[in-house]
Amino acid sequence: MNLILLFPSDFQDDQTVCLTGRRFTHLKEIIKPKVDDVLTVGLVDGDWGQGVVTQITQSDITMTVQLHQKPPQDLPIILCMALIRPLVFKRVLSTATALGVKNFIFFHSRQVEKSFWQSTALNEKNIKEHLVLGLEQAKDTKMPQVIFQKKFKPFLENVLLPLSLKHPVIVADPSGKKLDAKIRQKIFPAKPIVLVFGPEGGFIPYEINLFQKHRFSIVNMGERILKVETAMTSLISKLFDY
Amino acid sequence: MNLILLFPSDFQDDQTVCLTGRRFTHLKEIIKPKVDDVLTVGLVDGDWGQGVVTQITQSDITMTVQLHQKPPQDLPIILCMALIRPLVFKRVLSTATALGVKNFIFFHSRQVEKSFWQSTALNEKNIKEHLVLGLEQAKDTKMPQVIFQKKFKPFLENVLLPLSLKHPVIVADPSGKKLDAKIRQKIFPAKPIVLVFGPEGGFIPYEINLFQKHRFSIVNMGERILKVETAMTSLISKLFDY
Repeated sequence: MNLILLFPSDFQDDQTVCLTGRRFTHLKEIIKPKVDDVLTVGLVDGDWGQGVVTQITQSDITMTVQLHQKPPQDLPIILCMALIRPLVFKRVLSTATALGVKNFIFFHSRQVEKSFWQSTALNEKNIKEHLVLGLEQAKDTKMPQVIFQKKFKPFLENVLLPLSLKHPVIVADPSGKKLDAKIRQKIFPAKPIVLVFGPEGGFIPYEINLFQKHRFSIVNMGERILKVETAMTSLISKLFDY
Repeated sequence: MNLILLFPSDFQDDQTVCLTGRRFTHLKEIIKPKVDDVLTVGLVDGDWGQGVVTQITQSDITMTVQLHQKPPQDLPIILCMALIRPLVFKRVLSTATALGVKNFIFFHSRQVEKSFWQSTALNEKNIKEHLVLGLEQAKDTKMPQVIFQKKFKPFLENVLLPLSLKHPVIVADPSGKKLDAKIRQKIFPAKPIVLVFGPEGGFIPYEINLFQKHRFSIVNMGERILKVETAMTSLISKLFDY
């Protein structure tokens, strides 16, 4: 936790915040602040700055905050990913959020296990928890958006195709070409870019054919098979400085 | 598991292998192979290829193997990392191994918690388990080397300085410069490159001063604070295609 994310409901007045629950417990157990200590804090979707501890009780901590610093820049990426196992889903949310991704679209594809769609990890509260972890890691404040598309064809036709009219679409798949200067030239400086990652078992030929038909750039990530979280971090890092 | 790693002791003769233990259990529960199924297998530090299942019992599986394919290329990196929390240590081992790292040096630095050095994660058996997971993920066979340096100064003087006479050293630290064309020019095509990552709390000024004194390239990873595993994947991806 490199920043404590504050919500409007934490504020008692313009400059006074009172924290309870997870953030209070984390502070008490890990940071162990004393009165007059200065902590890094940020208002969700707002600026960040410093909070001076004014009071600590058994159940809450009160701070006087001053917020004047802008959060880091967003990554101009719309991240589309076939739904993954709940544990990986959570890690992807927080890792990509730390990297600066602000738009997530999780979709169904043939090789996604249907049971993944029933996971409690997809509840709004659990999603928010992992987005907040990513923001706190990167000293960011701007909350990402997460959207789900439970069918592949509606995802392709109603989401990806309309996006592709305005934005370059890059699909990561072993069948693709190496990410070379020619592909880079095609996608920059157009922003944001739409990145599409398949399920663990990969896209099926039918899905890849549809992507090809619509002239999306298909890039491969080299001869090594990487976990989706590693592949995502890797491709984002090759495309952007952040 | 995209490849099943075989060891010389698994071989009954030149082409017949018999698996028990973790690999047998994983196969039985996840892959559920039948007689005549073809699996991807590789011999540690050797070639990879295919194994045809000839027999499955309650406790083992027998295959006839043919190994003629070369493993993917190594990443020309010597990865030096301040020792991290056991859970992160395990993930770094398997993720970096999947990326192709063959040389790990874990060292002590001021902000490393001393208790990390007592962790059972550092046992040879546990280390090997996570290296194997990384190899199996990436269809690789070549086992990495892991070395520990429990004191900072001996690490610097006896390991890093001798390495720096032959190889470019890049230290990831917020105090550094952006990884730009000038730094890239300096480090390529010299290989391997030595990458150095600090502890979660960062290097202390004394340590950074020593790195500067020895003219190592210090690069920052942007304004976002990333977890060491993300920062490592990111920097490796910016430097190399794999």
